Amino acid sequence: MAWQATMDGGGANGDAAARQDSVQAVAWEEDAVRLLDQRRLPGAERYLSLSRATEVAEAIRDMVVRGAPAIGIAAAYAVVLAARAAWRCAGTDWRQAARPELQRLERARPTAVHLRWAVRRMRDRFAAIPGEPTPALLAEARALHREDMAANRRIGALGADFIGGPARVLTHCNAGALATGGYGTALGVVRSLHARGALRAVYVCESRPWLQGARLTAWELQRDGIPVTLIADAAAPGFMARGEIDWVVVGADRIAANGDVVNKIGTYAHAVAARHHGLGFLVAASAATIDAAMATGAGIPIERRAPEELLAGCGWQRLPPGIEAANPVFDLTPAALVGGIVTERGVVAPPGRDHVRALLAAEGGD
Amino acid sequence: MAWQATMDGGGANGDAAARQDSVQAVAWEEDAVRLLDQRRLPGAERYLSLSRATEVAEAIRDMVVRGAPAIGIAAAYAVVLAARAAWRCAGTDWRQAARPELQRLERARPTAVHLRWAVRRMRDRFAAIPGEPTPALLAEARALHREDMAANRRIGALGADFIGGPARVLTHCNAGALATGGYGTALGVVRSLHARGALRAVYVCESRPWLQGARLTAWELQRDGIPVTLIADAAAPGFMARGEIDWVVVGADRIAANGDVVNKIGTYAHAVAARHHGLGFLVAASAATIDAAMATGAGIPIERRAPEELLAGCGWQRLPPGIEAANPVFDLTPAALVGGIVTERGVVAPPGRDHVRALLAAEGGD
Repeated sequence: MAWQATMDGGGANGDAAARQDSVQAVAWEEDAVRLLDQRRLPGAERYLSLSRATEVAEAIRDMVVRGAPAIGIAAAYAVVLAARAAWRCAGTDWRQAARPELQRLERARPTAVHLRWAVRRMRDRFAAIPGEPTPALLAEARALHREDMAANRRIGALGADFIGGPARVLTHCNAGALATGGYGTALGVVRSLHARGALRAVYVCESRPWLQGARLTAWELQRDGIPVTLIADAAAPGFMARGEIDWVVVGADRIAANGDVVNKIGTYAHAVAARHHGLGFLVAASAATIDAAMATGAGIPIERRAPEELLAGCGWQRLPPGIEAANPVFDLTPAALVGGIVTERGVVAPPGRDHVRALLAAEGGD
Repeated sequence: MAWQATMDGGGANGDAAARQDSVQAVAWEEDAVRLLDQRRLPGAERYLSLSRATEVAEAIRDMVVRGAPAIGIAAAYAVVLAARAAWRCAGTDWRQAARPELQRLERARPTAVHLRWAVRRMRDRFAAIPGEPTPALLAEARALHREDMAANRRIGALGADFIGGPARVLTHCNAGALATGGYGTALGVVRSLHARGALRAVYVCESRPWLQGARLTAWELQRDGIPVTLIADAAAPGFMARGEIDWVVVGADRIAANGDVVNKIGTYAHAVAARHHGLGFLVAASAATIDAAMATGAGIPIERRAPEELLAGCGWQRLPPGIEAANPVFDLTPAALVGGIVTERGVVAPPGRDHVRALLAAEGGD
């Protein structure tokens, strides 16, 4: 791919090598789901091989794999595992026997829509399968995975077109290869700009409390030879005020029908600051991120994780009485602060109910 | 003091006990400066006893003591140490002999004005001292320390008056007893509201990268029995959007003559978000924080500390080629985003050149 052309590191030469070299958060390997353990990055690149759907649900809950599309892909492969196990136990009653595992998967994390969407897409295939379900379901999961990778390439190109010229980009959290089937959504746009020689700089916020920006995005870009500057989350507005950032480009965990965006905590802060400084704010996400059934973002559940996630490195072993910690890990950015939503089907700009509906109704809708 | 009246923890009963119980970041103890080692909080409450001015300069640079007023007080006591040592070596030439130490002290950190202000105030006393300088200089340093404590009580009361009614306050970093001679500036306002039964909630941002909010403010308020909720820096705008915060109250490291405020990185982000949500934004600082010689904030040096401060807990031991980290530890909030600056001499609201000048010209000016 063109975006590798200007790489000066990472050892990738040409398209095939580059694709091979790309990190894969999720893969199907023989009879198991292979997950890169993202909790251990950047210190160690370790893979877990999980052959039971329950293990995948736990891995999603515990953030071995994270990022809305990657979670969806992992769940799709986990449905294959669940169905295979159910077939072994229950034979032709496998659909019924697999149901508890599918429910566990859907509930592993509440905010991203992909998890539910992927499980339901897999389940929709159940009725037409005659005998042993593994081959058909594996084909479906692989198709879903391939489509996500293709969508990301397209999102990257469309996002770079939308931005237009050379740009200094701020991104938050990780919406990269690690969060998707490969290439990334927000980082797909970054990679596409880089390939065109139009990436003047990329700043990544560390993204407390889990530090996806510092641990994952910095690692992923460095691995691909794209220079990156790490900053503290709350430092971003200062860089904007000094004219060092042109665009904010982020991913999304769920997008409501009116264009409201739920994404990693801190996204809304960047949207407010981008508006204050008159900068572009672009959301990059596959069309599957749009939850047409959710009228506005107000209805999207915002996951609150354990307060202990805020305590790492603070010197508190546990919180004493008198100190509480609130740890919402996503936030809601109203459509009015979003300059554009780039999907593989096109860009919605400005976001709004009618534009989102038109995008979903366009060819390729499902 | 009244603010102790509603305390239900910490074991403080009545004024004397409360004052005794208040944590002291800086103290003079026999022939040394005693500093609470804030790098080790909240895990351990350890004190360093430093008898040489150079050691104090190093402690300031290494953030054993931090917070603009506390740094100033530590430096004032260090001038006593420098002058005493110079007298022992050089006798009546002590003023000349102490000069290098004073320069080293002034340069220990660049952003806060108190450091330079305190050293110069001490030096201004030199000329009138006849013989051994220790007694007169110690008296001056103690006066400076006492004045800061009194200023903070007054700032607390005036700030609570300014806010007026019951409030849910967001604060950032630590502008508390640990950052001052005692009681605190922003936390002085919080304590004053608490004493009046008018503190509905206090949220503290963890304040990356050094986590002063999580480590110091949470510890200090918990110690005083004031319930506090810890949140990630970039989570603040979400709490504002949900109507859970009424006022942002922060300290300052330096204030320009036009009311521009330089404070801990992240302050500007809160100011932008507060404006977006129509919330009050109050800066609490002693009048000594105002640098009348600095026309606007643009001229105030913003300290950039080692990138490694951003790496703690990220899994990076050091940054590999291709990843940079930018670590400005202060930012500039323009006066236009500041609702009021509360000092011991009164409140400047809205801040601006004429109002700031009038405040400095008022009785008690120095």
